[in-house]
Amino acid sequence: MTLNALPPLLFASLLALLAGCQSPGAPAERAALRGTGDLGVVVERATGSLLLVDTTEQAVLDRIEGLGDLSHASVKFSRDGRHAFVFGRDGGLSRVDLLTGEVTARVMQAGNSIGGAISQDGRLVAVANYAPGGVRVFDSETLAPVAEIPATYRAEDGSRQRAKVVGLVDAPGNRFVYSLFDAGEIRLLDMSGESPTERRFTAIGEQPYDALIDPTGRYYLAGLFGEDGLALLDLWHPERGVQRILPDYGRGEERLPVYKMPHLEGWALANGSAWLPAVGRHEVLVADEADWTLVDRIAVQGQPVFVMSRPDERQVWVNFAHPDNDVVQVIDTESREVVSTLSPGEAVLHMEFTPRGEHVWISARDSDRVRVYDTRTFEVLAELASESPSGIFFTDRAHRIGL
Amino acid sequence: MTLNALPPLLFASLLALLAGCQSPGAPAERAALRGTGDLGVVVERATGSLLLVDTTEQAVLDRIEGLGDLSHASVKFSRDGRHAFVFGRDGGLSRVDLLTGEVTARVMQAGNSIGGAISQDGRLVAVANYAPGGVRVFDSETLAPVAEIPATYRAEDGSRQRAKVVGLVDAPGNRFVYSLFDAGEIRLLDMSGESPTERRFTAIGEQPYDALIDPTGRYYLAGLFGEDGLALLDLWHPERGVQRILPDYGRGEERLPVYKMPHLEGWALANGSAWLPAVGRHEVLVADEADWTLVDRIAVQGQPVFVMSRPDERQVWVNFAHPDNDVVQVIDTESREVVSTLSPGEAVLHMEFTPRGEHVWISARDSDRVRVYDTRTFEVLAELASESPSGIFFTDRAHRIGL
Repeated sequence: MTLNALPPLLFASLLALLAGCQSPGAPAERAALRGTGDLGVVVERATGSLLLVDTTEQAVLDRIEGLGDLSHASVKFSRDGRHAFVFGRDGGLSRVDLLTGEVTARVMQAGNSIGGAISQDGRLVAVANYAPGGVRVFDSETLAPVAEIPATYRAEDGSRQRAKVVGLVDAPGNRFVYSLFDAGEIRLLDMSGESPTERRFTAIGEQPYDALIDPTGRYYLAGLFGEDGLALLDLWHPERGVQRILPDYGRGEERLPVYKMPHLEGWALANGSAWLPAVGRHEVLVADEADWTLVDRIAVQGQPVFVMSRPDERQVWVNFAHPDNDVVQVIDTESREVVSTLSPGEAVLHMEFTPRGEHVWISARDSDRVRVYDTRTFEVLAELASESPSGIFFTDRAHRIGL
Repeated sequence: MTLNALPPLLFASLLALLAGCQSPGAPAERAALRGTGDLGVVVERATGSLLLVDTTEQAVLDRIEGLGDLSHASVKFSRDGRHAFVFGRDGGLSRVDLLTGEVTARVMQAGNSIGGAISQDGRLVAVANYAPGGVRVFDSETLAPVAEIPATYRAEDGSRQRAKVVGLVDAPGNRFVYSLFDAGEIRLLDMSGESPTERRFTAIGEQPYDALIDPTGRYYLAGLFGEDGLALLDLWHPERGVQRILPDYGRGEERLPVYKMPHLEGWALANGSAWLPAVGRHEVLVADEADWTLVDRIAVQGQPVFVMSRPDERQVWVNFAHPDNDVVQVIDTESREVVSTLSPGEAVLHMEFTPRGEHVWISARDSDRVRVYDTRTFEVLAELASESPSGIFFTDRAHRIGL
């Protein structure tokens, strides 16, 4: 298992300091009266910028710069779809106005962070931090601090330590769920009352490294770096504690060198099954959604990274780790067969479906482009130039639990 | 079964003529730069107007008038969330700009119509018409006519007739599905090619009166007015034809006078089950989502009309036909017990959840108000004055199949 599988844990945030806090974005060139439901952003990791895109016109509208280190960056949206919250790797949290192109607020809130979430009511933005380890919560209008929750735990030597926080997601009831990499814990943070309350689930497994929550916000699943299987918390029944599922998932799956640990966000729930990337194998695994047992393995062209469901659940689309990262494969969820193999470019990093699934946008980092495909005919509809594009995020995520 | 169960079939459209075509809306008082993801509209049936609302501020922003007869009206949204398409009972189709409050296009496209749908790619708006019976398709930008598909069929006496079209929904692949009340048919209209093509399913049952499509766009279900059971078309397998499910649903359920036929849109899919209003009984029925068999009956306070799932699927909310239409009940989808009974006002007609489910908006027609509830605490958060409010529609529907 190579080290690039694990996000860098002690990344120096010099770039962040150079970029500075509260740096404004480019001045608003256009502030058009328009709907925000067909907007999206493409993360340009090398240049610390976002491309603002329009999924109706399949066009680039603007480039928003000054966002710091955007390697492994993720994006959430305000409930009105107007603002993007950009979680930079350097601990920077930026609020971008998609209508004016301005960075309306920016805080360097930690030295090293790994994504965030927005509360069900849209009022709070939470960030998962590696250094110092913990969760910080901000007002989504102003980015003023609301709460700081250090991820403290008792280490084996008895000392108090702060753990790196991973797999932070929102859950119904203005709650957030996250995992402590170093401590092997899942924590449930309730922000619905006067002051934050936290519930801790300990000894859930070695080194949770990423997590997801299902589209209803009921099941939280954490992947384990230090052992096999996945940790499952049923938020309808927290009193039942954390269970272990898919006990062979992880090292038990390992047959080849692992070039990249799969993202847990790269699971798909489609047609009654969970579709997930095997670790270190050229396979997509299929688990029963009802009891999480493994029911099938589908041979694919490389080690899968993201397995994404088309919104109508008839297809899942798969991208791959190096050296097979120049292809994308499409699996029919009924026949469980690969029905198409596409070549969108070099280093395919992410795929985002339009909300009702007619198109998919695919970023090819080393080809400096984003391609738009028709998901029915597999025709290339558009190709947009972009500097080292990685994540693609559309504003309809504002309306979905856990996204 | 009373006649008001059936929407009036030959409703004179005098009001429509009086209202006139292309009547402009109120001039734009505000054209604020704002996101459209937290906008919604409330149909005011008596006055032919829409209230424009903001779900973040829980406030009324504007009233848009001149929309004709809005009894039984429904609304769809453009894929950018900026425009609402309003399907009036009088055959009027209006395109409303939510940012300016203007009616940007309006056509009197039939004498009597019953709702519509927007294509997966957002470019087409289709309307289901009673008189003359058929489907008309329009360009969503301009409302220019694109296609007219008369619902012709061979009557028992051998003559060619046009049937009333009901239950029109969108399906993936730029298709529309609808039913012919008089002919007992389901038709699948494919608008993805150069010219429209249509596939017909005949003898599907007596008098389909309403229909729904599930959130993935796979299953189309039509309710039957003339006999028991429901007609099911699996769009992944149209070659298998139309099956009958829930064979006792309908008259077989009837034990009390039926005050209102339940809306099929009032079905919920939640927690592995379908939740549906019993016909003429004080019960919500629970069917297995996998095989559509009936698994439970839950006693409620009246004859259910809408059974709506909170987006996290932990609750379904139920409103009722006269004379029990002043209450709403909440059922826990796990325990299948009624956990709350609320009194939002007189003649509760509709309920709409905010996209991630923290709130629900409920219209009480005869109390001239809309109430906003917290779905966790059942607290009343806001109360908005509205003239005879009926349907409530939020813009996140733009991003969902079949809505």
